[in-house]
Amino acid sequence: MERDRDSRHHVVIVGAGFGGLQAAKALGKADNVRVTVVDRYNHHLFQPLLYQVATAVLNPSDISAPIRTVLRSRNTEVLLAEAKSVDARRKVLVVEGGEIPYDSLVLATGATHSYFKHPEWAQVAPGLKTLEDAVRMRERVLTAFEAAERESDPERQRQWMTFVIIGAGPTGVELAGALSYMTRHGLPKDFRRIDTRQARVILLEGLPRVLSTYPEELSEAAKRDLEKLHVEVRTGALVTGIDAEGVTFGDEHIATRTVLWGAGVAASPLVRSLEVPLDRAGRVKVTPLLTAPGLNDVYVIGDVAAAEQRGKPVPGIAPAAMQMGRHVAKTIRARLADKPLRAFRYHDKGSFAVIGRGYAVGLLFDKWRMKGLPAWCVWAGVHIAYLVGFRNRASVMLNWGYTFFTKGGRDMRLITGNVVKRMPALAASLQAPAVPPPPVRPELPASRPAPVH
Amino acid sequence: MERDRDSRHHVVIVGAGFGGLQAAKALGKADNVRVTVVDRYNHHLFQPLLYQVATAVLNPSDISAPIRTVLRSRNTEVLLAEAKSVDARRKVLVVEGGEIPYDSLVLATGATHSYFKHPEWAQVAPGLKTLEDAVRMRERVLTAFEAAERESDPERQRQWMTFVIIGAGPTGVELAGALSYMTRHGLPKDFRRIDTRQARVILLEGLPRVLSTYPEELSEAAKRDLEKLHVEVRTGALVTGIDAEGVTFGDEHIATRTVLWGAGVAASPLVRSLEVPLDRAGRVKVTPLLTAPGLNDVYVIGDVAAAEQRGKPVPGIAPAAMQMGRHVAKTIRARLADKPLRAFRYHDKGSFAVIGRGYAVGLLFDKWRMKGLPAWCVWAGVHIAYLVGFRNRASVMLNWGYTFFTKGGRDMRLITGNVVKRMPALAASLQAPAVPPPPVRPELPASRPAPVH
Repeated sequence: MERDRDSRHHVVIVGAGFGGLQAAKALGKADNVRVTVVDRYNHHLFQPLLYQVATAVLNPSDISAPIRTVLRSRNTEVLLAEAKSVDARRKVLVVEGGEIPYDSLVLATGATHSYFKHPEWAQVAPGLKTLEDAVRMRERVLTAFEAAERESDPERQRQWMTFVIIGAGPTGVELAGALSYMTRHGLPKDFRRIDTRQARVILLEGLPRVLSTYPEELSEAAKRDLEKLHVEVRTGALVTGIDAEGVTFGDEHIATRTVLWGAGVAASPLVRSLEVPLDRAGRVKVTPLLTAPGLNDVYVIGDVAAAEQRGKPVPGIAPAAMQMGRHVAKTIRARLADKPLRAFRYHDKGSFAVIGRGYAVGLLFDKWRMKGLPAWCVWAGVHIAYLVGFRNRASVMLNWGYTFFTKGGRDMRLITGNVVKRMPALAASLQAPAVPPPPVRPELPASRPAPVH
Repeated sequence: MERDRDSRHHVVIVGAGFGGLQAAKALGKADNVRVTVVDRYNHHLFQPLLYQVATAVLNPSDISAPIRTVLRSRNTEVLLAEAKSVDARRKVLVVEGGEIPYDSLVLATGATHSYFKHPEWAQVAPGLKTLEDAVRMRERVLTAFEAAERESDPERQRQWMTFVIIGAGPTGVELAGALSYMTRHGLPKDFRRIDTRQARVILLEGLPRVLSTYPEELSEAAKRDLEKLHVEVRTGALVTGIDAEGVTFGDEHIATRTVLWGAGVAASPLVRSLEVPLDRAGRVKVTPLLTAPGLNDVYVIGDVAAAEQRGKPVPGIAPAAMQMGRHVAKTIRARLADKPLRAFRYHDKGSFAVIGRGYAVGLLFDKWRMKGLPAWCVWAGVHIAYLVGFRNRASVMLNWGYTFFTKGGRDMRLITGNVVKRMPALAASLQAPAVPPPPVRPELPASRPAPVH
């Protein structure tokens, strides 16, 4: 009944990631449209920098912005709610506690981790998709060093100081590089009983090379540079077991208390309720207009969409999602104006993976291969430019500048919670001073070793 | 056995707050001493600014610094552990999973909330002592507005938009001022269905006036200015009931979903195991040397100590704790050198409470009364100066500057978690657009009203 009062076309967008936000922004000034953005978090998240929150370089608030603040158009409403399913026949989105009718629906709910039919691994090998994930990962890493400092048994101490990262895609590579850097710069002076520089960071990849979506030359450069940063790279390593004590792959076993998951992703499960064909990762095989097959008013974009272009899949990265979001907004407006519709075309502007401070590899415009400092500069510039909001930009630049010039972060090494419960029992030897005897670690040199690049 | 190898005097400091940190720093260069600092958190916390994390002005990392990084002296060890009790006869500190023998013990474990024999209130009326508390409080406040936006029943909407703060000491006053400011600057433009400027912020105080430890003139100025910021101040209001639906005091009841606790504090319970006389708040009545009565090698400082000076209690504020920490370090060194010992003397340099942006009240050197912008400038300068670490300072200045000039924060309005579970059921009316009908709120003026001061 109340709906009759408003003749505007109602676009409901689920998910305020890169895709959903662009769609909402592009529709924000249309007079004949009203927009409702539904998200279960109150913030847009700049996911590509999540690994820097996990490795204590950036603050959670540096890479997030309140959705309400980003989307202040008069025709746009934001709703904090969890979408449960789509009833495409009745044209309603079902959320917990209610329903929202739509004229057009945009599903931009992104991806989650996939543990390859081993859901029990999620407990011991956390992934990195949300701010909560990043904060938890940071606490696990920092707590491991605290536990190692308390531990007197050398074997268990080594176990605490071994970090395994599974999956050498961009997330895994970036995590491994940043973590290894952290153990050598910043942390060493903080501990008395352990030498954090002896920590092992092991990157496991099931495929034959790291960054397998990149050209082979860049994969090799990335591997070389990870090794310079003292990351142990093991390719062709198919993990068969993970528990609280370690990781098994092939006939090898690594004793570790800290496993981080950078491997499989799966599309968010919401699209299953559309009852349309999905690919193996659970993504919707969209039409050239980015609609779900047979559902002309349901658009699917970003990491939940399996779009193809000239036989090649459109990659699951932020620029692709943003382009899809803008394209969907154009399609909706064109339809309302009875104008001709165009198929989506992905423009590959490039993709980059950071390995360490001042070092990255990447492809610009899908043809120019870059590595080293030039690649890092392009990466840093693009990321700063795309960060939402003045304060985020200033704060990220401040934190990067600080980390860059002091060779190691400082004040983000924050364990918010009381994690003492997770720690090993206090060793009897703690009653004795760490220095002078026994010399468990070599003296730190007065000046630190030169950085690797 | 191993202890014999080290002849240095072992000082164990429990708690790395203002007092413990100063004691550790002042002992950091002594050759004949080794220091172990025990804390259950890995960070020192700048508690006076905690309310700004709770009201989304600052980041958690802005007001915290890793204890290990702050205390890098060669003779100092840091241990992440939870102290359980003191066995003064055997001279050991008992922590979970072990024991630490000491020659001198410094207890600086601070205070916690006290709910005046109503522990069940802790669930519904969170206090503000740790970073976790502040993050939780921020999430509760922001979630209340989200819930109000979803609610269609006007009465329940009003309940979500009513905030009650209990206790008008500095914490309560600062929280109330900052919260009320936030509802009028920054938030209003973000919501479509509610007018956040109609939120009620009610400050309840059992005593006859706010800031009761300050001179009456300043209490009155503070009350006046809180009211200018639209805080409803109710003094002489003794709370008798708090639950998820509201607060009862006298024969009044306020329907609210958000109650914040700024009232009673109680000393940390660790000192009970000393078996020495405690005051009503559970604090140790220390000797003029700041030792526990009858225990010459157990020092008690900061908020767990009830120290007196010329018949007046030394206040439970950061500068007093810092002075105590330095004094204890001097006493320990003097004892080891067989030098004469001096009684502790507190130098009152002043205390301030902030009411709103650019407005504070305070006492400088216990005599000069200040209010308004001059008081705020002194307050801001002192707080910036005492913040630990360059990056914290730069980041706090950046965030304050941003908030000051834009009249309202922005990017800290972060709910890290998925809070949808706590929200009310989606109202049926949400299916209808909020605008145009019905006009639940007046149009926002093109330019915002001038700030109150």
